[in-house]
Amino acid sequence: MKKLTSILFLFILINSFAQIQKIEPEFWWSGMKNTELQLLVYGKNINHLVPEFSNGIQIKEVLKVENPNYLFVTIDTKGVQPGKVKLNFKKGKKTVQSFDYEFKSRENNSAQRKGFDSSDVFYLLMPDRFANGNPNNDNTKETAEIANRSDLNGRHGGDLEGIIQNLDYLDELGITTIWSTPLLEDNEPAYSYHGYAQSDYYKIDPRYGTNADYKRLADELHKREMKLVMDYVTNHWGSKHWIIQDLPMEDWIHVWHTEEAQKQNGFQRSNYRMTTQFDQNAAEIDAEGCMDGWFDTTMPDMNQSNPLVLNYMVQNAIWWIEFAGLDGLRVDTYSYNDKKGIAEWTKRIMDEYPNFNIVGEIWMHDQAQMAYWQKDSKIGALDNYNSNLPSVMDFTLHDAIGLAFKENQGWDSGMMRVYENFTNDFLYPEIDNIMVFAENHDTNRFNEIYSNIEDYKLAMSLILTIRGIPQLYYGSEIGMKGDKGKGDGDIRRDFPGGWAGDKNNAFTEEGRTAEQKAYFNFTKKLLNWRKGKDVIHTGKTLHFIPQENVYVYFRHNEKESVMVVLNSSEKDHKLELKRFMEGIKDFTAGKDVMSGNEFKLTDQLKVKAKSSLILELK
Amino acid sequence: MKKLTSILFLFILINSFAQIQKIEPEFWWSGMKNTELQLLVYGKNINHLVPEFSNGIQIKEVLKVENPNYLFVTIDTKGVQPGKVKLNFKKGKKTVQSFDYEFKSRENNSAQRKGFDSSDVFYLLMPDRFANGNPNNDNTKETAEIANRSDLNGRHGGDLEGIIQNLDYLDELGITTIWSTPLLEDNEPAYSYHGYAQSDYYKIDPRYGTNADYKRLADELHKREMKLVMDYVTNHWGSKHWIIQDLPMEDWIHVWHTEEAQKQNGFQRSNYRMTTQFDQNAAEIDAEGCMDGWFDTTMPDMNQSNPLVLNYMVQNAIWWIEFAGLDGLRVDTYSYNDKKGIAEWTKRIMDEYPNFNIVGEIWMHDQAQMAYWQKDSKIGALDNYNSNLPSVMDFTLHDAIGLAFKENQGWDSGMMRVYENFTNDFLYPEIDNIMVFAENHDTNRFNEIYSNIEDYKLAMSLILTIRGIPQLYYGSEIGMKGDKGKGDGDIRRDFPGGWAGDKNNAFTEEGRTAEQKAYFNFTKKLLNWRKGKDVIHTGKTLHFIPQENVYVYFRHNEKESVMVVLNSSEKDHKLELKRFMEGIKDFTAGKDVMSGNEFKLTDQLKVKAKSSLILELK
Repeated sequence: MKKLTSILFLFILINSFAQIQKIEPEFWWSGMKNTELQLLVYGKNINHLVPEFSNGIQIKEVLKVENPNYLFVTIDTKGVQPGKVKLNFKKGKKTVQSFDYEFKSRENNSAQRKGFDSSDVFYLLMPDRFANGNPNNDNTKETAEIANRSDLNGRHGGDLEGIIQNLDYLDELGITTIWSTPLLEDNEPAYSYHGYAQSDYYKIDPRYGTNADYKRLADELHKREMKLVMDYVTNHWGSKHWIIQDLPMEDWIHVWHTEEAQKQNGFQRSNYRMTTQFDQNAAEIDAEGCMDGWFDTTMPDMNQSNPLVLNYMVQNAIWWIEFAGLDGLRVDTYSYNDKKGIAEWTKRIMDEYPNFNIVGEIWMHDQAQMAYWQKDSKIGALDNYNSNLPSVMDFTLHDAIGLAFKENQGWDSGMMRVYENFTNDFLYPEIDNIMVFAENHDTNRFNEIYSNIEDYKLAMSLILTIRGIPQLYYGSEIGMKGDKGKGDGDIRRDFPGGWAGDKNNAFTEEGRTAEQKAYFNFTKKLLNWRKGKDVIHTGKTLHFIPQENVYVYFRHNEKESVMVVLNSSEKDHKLELKRFMEGIKDFTAGKDVMSGNEFKLTDQLKVKAKSSLILELK
Repeated sequence: MKKLTSILFLFILINSFAQIQKIEPEFWWSGMKNTELQLLVYGKNINHLVPEFSNGIQIKEVLKVENPNYLFVTIDTKGVQPGKVKLNFKKGKKTVQSFDYEFKSRENNSAQRKGFDSSDVFYLLMPDRFANGNPNNDNTKETAEIANRSDLNGRHGGDLEGIIQNLDYLDELGITTIWSTPLLEDNEPAYSYHGYAQSDYYKIDPRYGTNADYKRLADELHKREMKLVMDYVTNHWGSKHWIIQDLPMEDWIHVWHTEEAQKQNGFQRSNYRMTTQFDQNAAEIDAEGCMDGWFDTTMPDMNQSNPLVLNYMVQNAIWWIEFAGLDGLRVDTYSYNDKKGIAEWTKRIMDEYPNFNIVGEIWMHDQAQMAYWQKDSKIGALDNYNSNLPSVMDFTLHDAIGLAFKENQGWDSGMMRVYENFTNDFLYPEIDNIMVFAENHDTNRFNEIYSNIEDYKLAMSLILTIRGIPQLYYGSEIGMKGDKGKGDGDIRRDFPGGWAGDKNNAFTEEGRTAEQKAYFNFTKKLLNWRKGKDVIHTGKTLHFIPQENVYVYFRHNEKESVMVVLNSSEKDHKLELKRFMEGIKDFTAGKDVMSGNEFKLTDQLKVKAKSSLILELK
């Protein structure tokens, strides 16, 4: 039997009358906190078969659904020892098909694994665009879209091997955590490189590598004390997903019944108005239009209120956490999901891994609306809602950063935008568990908006010293640009050096241009400094109203204090330090992290135009 | 003794050695819930005198302060009967001075008076600019600034008599409640017309009339079942206030001690950053700079954390409520006050009048920040704060209205701005107790921004049918314009017809121009319709995402339903009614309030470009 086949079909044929083609999950673990497991059994007209375990594992429920090609078998795994057990499917007294179903041993400390936190720095990359470590898997027989590097919207060949080969680069840079956009199979005929229309939730896209390669990535990261976060998509699956192509029941997904929708497999585009999820005045038709509308034509909207769907998604996420040894999840379009369903999904994962972390994409522009979605939010409670989601993303900070550094200070412009973002910190239930970023794979690139290293340094100084979990976007650390106005492809260009024959190889010091070196060295120094700084990870923030476009804040704890000065103005400034005594306290000097220069904190502090100081107070 | 003198000094001289010049409050009431009363006694070096009541009223405390010209005498009025009692001031055994201190009877139902609510519509006017009913009081001997109608920033002579003479106009218009900007004496030599730098908190400015005239205004309003709301300023007094000119103690106000401040009577301008009041990251120096900074050079910032100041302000507010029979207070610059102090002030007034209402000016641009300040706010609770303030102002709606009607619909422009404002309604603890307005005396005039009656009608249709308490601004109902860019004077022009000899008299139907008639008649019809509509006052809101710049919402209760269609686009539209069935329910027709036309609600609904429909469903 070919290795490829075993990975693809995940089952063992035992006789030639075999009808069952898939059992998902393919294997499980003994010793899980939640001992219930629901097997999805798939094959042509197999729902008359009766499952039975040889070792007495209790089958709690066998559920037939609309489509006779499915059985949902719920079992209790309590007390199951690691090893394989026989799972027989019978017709009358006759065993028609038999499987060796495996319960694996869990890794040490699996349940108590610690998720990412504010001591980490995320590096968001797109695997197709980062590095092509294995040119042999750029195209495969099983996948539709053919690589074409000259097409900005096509597949370029980047893969897991490429990431693994460049981990030392990321480690040197000072990154602690990789968030890769989805790596599971996306078998759309076009635009499959982004990976958000996934066609198999138990399989790494073969153009990226294998499931084993994914685990190898995690292992290689862990060797370096780095972390891996999976980009998980609950809201929609790809239209080419095998289950979508043969739905267990209609309400597995949200099928729309308008005449227009029926012409397009039940497609109706989401209205994308996430406010309808909590707005007490919202019309039901609008709330449904947001939640149940499709994100795109190739992305059928999943019905998380269907317990079978939810079970599948919970188990699948746990399967990847256990299998690969994940350190966290990033959940795509979190606030487009069925509200109750996604809260339950999140809770069940966090119940299994109480120290884990999950960050959700809540792309809104109002802090109260974002805070609504964080676990135990008092704002959510106004609507009797608790998402259970530990971490949210600071999109309003992103909004502010996109404008602040190119403006003069006005009542609410320039550095006031940044300052004002943090005035609402009290709305968030856990302020350190918020992801902060200047850009991501869906936004304009920072270096496109600003295109000078001074503003990059200001923004990085901010992102890497303010509260929260910083997230960088691949390539910005070497000054990469990309214009959202030209389409998503342009903000997702190939990392230079990731392809054999690239003239510019920014992965190596000698390969970098002078400009790339300047960006890289600054970022590297700041990131590596940040690693050991508890005061940045979990210290309190004390900030001062910006004056003349200079923003000053302190991060402080009982042990130490860091004073950050961001001068976004075009003028040198002398700050009168008297104003900042609440932060300076008894400290008398500050050593600038980047220059190493020491400044007396007695009278005035000079800060050059368009520059920052990050002073460790002494 | 001249009447004028008795009003001014509010005391009775009984011998020629008299030293005490003032006792405040001048009189009080029997039967108040809070029986404690603190008298401020003032006179040259009087603090050695010992007060004593003839009838055995208990003196709980006699407090001397830094300035020997003051005594603060706290008494317990429990059981005091209406009438006059002797209050003697002794030096040793000798009575040096004696007063007849009066406890008046309270009006029927005074304690249980019902404050304004969402069945009301406010008319905000500036008394100096509304109508000059008594030209004889345009200037007085006791007041500094001389009337000069040709100066936009000068005094124009409007007065209480002018308001009273035009109550029938307001009644006909359909207004239920007058909010006049401050009427108490403001004796600044310039810009005194706005009245926010008050120099005597117990006296109507003589250029407006007398205290008795103010009570007469209330009485005349009550006769018409209309209400009076006083504009109360706690944050600052005027620099010419007699107490400010001879401070009881330095910390009666916030005196700043910088070299610069000491040159200007302790003045330091507020930084106006109200976020510092709840921002968990805010520097103390910034929070103080907001709260304790002065609103303007002529407005010393009051220290509400000084219990003597707070008592004075609580009693003064209660004094006016009892004296004039007020139906509510509007509190100026609420969020600039000492946070704890203003919450206590509000609570003590509401404790005295549990069914009263107070609306505070919280001029912020974020719903969570505004909701923070409403009584029992869960957002305030995040900061362990409860303002006790029943009503706040919907400034974000004002922001939206200023832009929405001149824009095409985009992701967040045009009618989306208005829709989005209401998506955060769940943040407010009491959504019906929010003041909604398109403009006020500090903003650009609506008719200046839009200058066409179509947009005026759209905005009024919104303001007068959405949740909350609508507030109109004098003159807009006849199309008055005014450009904030030209200074405050321009948005506070004289109401035409308020001055003898005005060529245009918009107070009378025959005096109005055709354009004024069009504005007036629309407003009148809508306001008078609104009066009886519980469904508008307290119904729930159901709104739909605007499409093509058409915003549709329903106000509904168990008994009735109103469908509002605001078409702000330049195109006629046919709405497919199927989308709105959640609101239409079993109703089959709607009668338009303004045109009287009846529309079938079966298939489509036509709505003309730049127009609204307000349909009572049948």
